[in-house]
Amino acid sequence: MLSRVPVLLALGVSLMGVASAVAETPEQAIRRVLDDQVRAWNRGDLKGFMEGYWKSDKLTFSSGGDQTKGWQATLDRFRKRYQGEGREMGKLAFTEINVELLGADSAFVRGRWQLVRSKDRPGGVFTLILRRLPEGWRIVHDHTSN
Amino acid sequence: MLSRVPVLLALGVSLMGVASAVAETPEQAIRRVLDDQVRAWNRGDLKGFMEGYWKSDKLTFSSGGDQTKGWQATLDRFRKRYQGEGREMGKLAFTEINVELLGADSAFVRGRWQLVRSKDRPGGVFTLILRRLPEGWRIVHDHTSN
Repeated sequence: MLSRVPVLLALGVSLMGVASAVAETPEQAIRRVLDDQVRAWNRGDLKGFMEGYWKSDKLTFSSGGDQTKGWQATLDRFRKRYQGEGREMGKLAFTEINVELLGADSAFVRGRWQLVRSKDRPGGVFTLILRRLPEGWRIVHDHTSN
Repeated sequence: MLSRVPVLLALGVSLMGVASAVAETPEQAIRRVLDDQVRAWNRGDLKGFMEGYWKSDKLTFSSGGDQTKGWQATLDRFRKRYQGEGREMGKLAFTEINVELLGADSAFVRGRWQLVRSKDRPGGVFTLILRRLPEGWRIVHDHTSN
């Protein structure tokens, strides 16, 4: 019997691992993606911020009456608007976050964004569509307006 | 055998009925909801236009940096903006419609809207979340910006 103890211990530890992974609900996983984005933005890490987005040419980002298509084009848009000459990323906050599941592997999020910069405080609302992909929950479409 | 012919005929007819109902894909059903909205708008029928939306207090409509909550409040917002003193509904068109299913009973739609009025031509992009409800596919969230 004693010889089985290490096996049972190992089994116990691996089940605990599974339990803690399962314990994170889709909503918690999605909120973590957004929290990570805010943290990345606020340390000036635009590539880290972009981790929340689907790294695909099919990612779409709608804002200001126009649509940007693709992960790289979306990163380029952010760089131009927030890291260009005389531009400032400022401090970002998301509030009134509402996560709603649309199935086992998809969800949409409504919320408000607010940026505090030295010269202005732009803000507005956003709608995100997320999918659970092999790499985790990712934003596949973002509609941000102010 | 002959006595079974009417039964088989009846069965055949009812199966054809099922087949034609099944023949409308979710994408076609969703596009029909949007087409019906445009037709209603263009005959000045705001209530008909509102048929495309979930008749619920949980419907949300985001535009101009703000969120309107509930079917009635959304109708009131449209009335105020498009049917008030000196206001005009104009002629509406949706273009670049892209329907993407998120599961058996949910989808999101990206597209452009354009209004032609006597004095201006406002337009922009929208993101819609739709769910298949007992009454049919309905918009449960609309984010429209210009």
